[in-house]
Amino acid sequence: MSDSIQLQQRISDLLGPQGCLVAADQRQPYEKGARYGDGRSLCIARPANVEEAAELMRLCASEKIRIVAQGANTGLVGASSPDRSGLDVVLSMERIKGVIDIDPVDRVVQAYAGTRLSDLNQALRQHELCFPIDLAADPSLGGMLAANTGGARLIRYGDVRHNVLGLEALLIDPPGQRLDLTNRLRKNNTGPDWKQNFIGSGGAYGIITQAVLQVHPLPQQCATALVVPASLQAAASLLRDAERNFSDFLSAFEGISHNAMQSVLQHIPAIQAPFEPLPPYAFLIELSSARPRSADFDLEKIFGAWLEACFGDLILDAVIDKPEVLWRMRHAITDSVRQEGKVIAFDIAVPRSRLGAFRDEAIALLEHRYPGVRVFDFGHWGDGGLHFNLVLPQRLADDFPPQRIDALRQEIYDLAVHKYRGSFSAEHGVGPFNQQFYERYTVAESQALAARMQTVFDPARLLGVTRFGPAP
Amino acid sequence: MSDSIQLQQRISDLLGPQGCLVAADQRQPYEKGARYGDGRSLCIARPANVEEAAELMRLCASEKIRIVAQGANTGLVGASSPDRSGLDVVLSMERIKGVIDIDPVDRVVQAYAGTRLSDLNQALRQHELCFPIDLAADPSLGGMLAANTGGARLIRYGDVRHNVLGLEALLIDPPGQRLDLTNRLRKNNTGPDWKQNFIGSGGAYGIITQAVLQVHPLPQQCATALVVPASLQAAASLLRDAERNFSDFLSAFEGISHNAMQSVLQHIPAIQAPFEPLPPYAFLIELSSARPRSADFDLEKIFGAWLEACFGDLILDAVIDKPEVLWRMRHAITDSVRQEGKVIAFDIAVPRSRLGAFRDEAIALLEHRYPGVRVFDFGHWGDGGLHFNLVLPQRLADDFPPQRIDALRQEIYDLAVHKYRGSFSAEHGVGPFNQQFYERYTVAESQALAARMQTVFDPARLLGVTRFGPAP
Repeated sequence: MSDSIQLQQRISDLLGPQGCLVAADQRQPYEKGARYGDGRSLCIARPANVEEAAELMRLCASEKIRIVAQGANTGLVGASSPDRSGLDVVLSMERIKGVIDIDPVDRVVQAYAGTRLSDLNQALRQHELCFPIDLAADPSLGGMLAANTGGARLIRYGDVRHNVLGLEALLIDPPGQRLDLTNRLRKNNTGPDWKQNFIGSGGAYGIITQAVLQVHPLPQQCATALVVPASLQAAASLLRDAERNFSDFLSAFEGISHNAMQSVLQHIPAIQAPFEPLPPYAFLIELSSARPRSADFDLEKIFGAWLEACFGDLILDAVIDKPEVLWRMRHAITDSVRQEGKVIAFDIAVPRSRLGAFRDEAIALLEHRYPGVRVFDFGHWGDGGLHFNLVLPQRLADDFPPQRIDALRQEIYDLAVHKYRGSFSAEHGVGPFNQQFYERYTVAESQALAARMQTVFDPARLLGVTRFGPAP
Repeated sequence: MSDSIQLQQRISDLLGPQGCLVAADQRQPYEKGARYGDGRSLCIARPANVEEAAELMRLCASEKIRIVAQGANTGLVGASSPDRSGLDVVLSMERIKGVIDIDPVDRVVQAYAGTRLSDLNQALRQHELCFPIDLAADPSLGGMLAANTGGARLIRYGDVRHNVLGLEALLIDPPGQRLDLTNRLRKNNTGPDWKQNFIGSGGAYGIITQAVLQVHPLPQQCATALVVPASLQAAASLLRDAERNFSDFLSAFEGISHNAMQSVLQHIPAIQAPFEPLPPYAFLIELSSARPRSADFDLEKIFGAWLEACFGDLILDAVIDKPEVLWRMRHAITDSVRQEGKVIAFDIAVPRSRLGAFRDEAIALLEHRYPGVRVFDFGHWGDGGLHFNLVLPQRLADDFPPQRIDALRQEIYDLAVHKYRGSFSAEHGVGPFNQQFYERYTVAESQALAARMQTVFDPARLLGVTRFGPAP
């Protein structure tokens, strides 16, 4: 019996046949990531509860088997995919799920890591509460914490980190040790906030098994408009004015480029053109409030009056429509653009006051150095986030071998990170896909710290496929 | 020449006579804390800039001298006071101060750690911005980050941690190494968020020299009321109803007990009784918005209508008055209570849904076990924070030797932490004052992690007077 088969058998003995998938066709959905990541695992371990997960970790630690934690496998950087060795165990959290408790007075929910965002929100809805991290995907909570997801309503609610009150994690050293940080306090200054080390670090320091989240009153009214700014230079003034007027209830300030709009209209005939002709850029601005609409507080009325006041100076045109209509266009962009050709996706952030300047300079760089590449950008303008997605037309495929695409990517990142003090990964995390950029752009002092942190949390490097510290 | 005099001389040579205070009368204001902490230092080092601070750290590391960082010396747990050995260097950040940059579009300010909160807010006011951490004291930014201060408006703006975008810190290993984490991004998922380790850890892992903060539009209108709840059991429903109605602009929900009100009225004759007779409890509720008052958005009108609707069921009485009038009473409590006798101060948090039950049980415990002790509690009800401050009447002084006060303190903490899953230090941090409670209440796994973290950041234990890991 080979070592691999023996190990598979031991894991199967531990977790039962349902808890250990060995057949290639059963493994495959767990081995391929949503955008990047495509490997081969020893097996897919699906523990039924936290104690089984801890047992699995003890077994893997004693055998020096690497563990790649996976939630809903919706991540975009390959951080939850095994490598090609066939030696990694994928630890799927999909069976460790469910809401443990909702306290509507505390506005707190405690749930297992495998719980999907949609299921969480369904449970919260009965209490007129929501976890307002708005994403195109339906991730698990553990993945959301590990990636520190952002989304379209960060301007109002912050990222995941801002809403985590507590968590439980399993450490790999000592193997399977449960670290109970599941408190529900909003104020608790009793030493270093250990949970922060598990948020946004992509599973490198432990495996998150439970989350305690601060949740928010469900909005009872909402006003949305698609707005054409006088110019992209005016966007900063528009944003500033919107925040002054609506800082309390501004819940989205999303940017959509002409090309992105056009792509949606072309590929999804059911969506009607909001403007004729399409403007160079538009913003989806949303106000929302948990306070129901009333004569003395009507967001649509307040919003309409503001838009009118901005006309001419800051705004050239605006369409006020139902949220579901306008968000439909926004959410359709990624899929539509994919039909235009080979996509080179970016997830950049710069300080939001410089987003327009960055975009101009990045487009000029492309025109000069990579003519023919088309820009279909959109993003979270209010937070400085830009999905500066490019499309390589089919006719240019031969001119763009992989090395040239890599060079293009690096030139855009150099511009964002070095000149604009921006980020090469605003929302998606590091993972194997961004590993080389982490090494290029992270200051040496932070990487040195990461190397030392590795010895605290995972000296044998058994957790995950991302490497924050230099190899030993 | 003794070792001490030689070291003082070397520090004076490094920082200049202004940068090194040796005379006892000059040292004294830095050696005594605002509430706890009273020691003797080798000298007070006052570097003029970050480079000098780094030089000082290199000197101290090579001589194995402990460094206690100090901002405005307003902390309440003795974390910035030297011990009694006369061997610690107090590193005062008071000369490393000033705003570096304000970007009103980004709503971001970058400032040196020694900058006072009041000075920061004065600089921000020109841009109609504010850093809305509301405290009785006027701390420095470095101290605010190190303590992760909360305050009275956390319910709206979060604590300091929620508003830090970046920081710069000096490490002690390698000595004086500058760790530049001063980015201004709202979205930046490029690995572990190192800055979190310096926030709330009381200077144990490095010395914060700069802060990059997200700031907020200055409120343009405000409505405040002092509200008498139907009962403390009804307080949870009142809070929930207030959040449903005003989640967007509820900026304070503070609790004040009968005794606290009475103490203020007795000691500050200029403040008039809001109610006759005084109720058992009252809440200071504040709404505020950056949107100016207008016919279609008037917080006083909205607030008044809500209060009226709550009458009878949730509310027995209410006084609507100017913010400055009502907050004056709130802010006068600590000083007034001090005039009642010996104060035993608490800084407790429990999940806010259980705050009323905790208070009832804590009072019953005192009546049973420590009769005669009077309760003057107040606090941040909306965040679960309670300053459960007690007064020991003079006539009972002999019955309460220090050991009995210690026992009382521990019984209250046991109740809060063990039964209510609360915190022994909601806002103030650990420091030497809370060291024994940190050791008693922190789970063993976290303390073990702290011991390992010590080896990452400060293996020689040269930073600060708080100990998160067990002694080696």
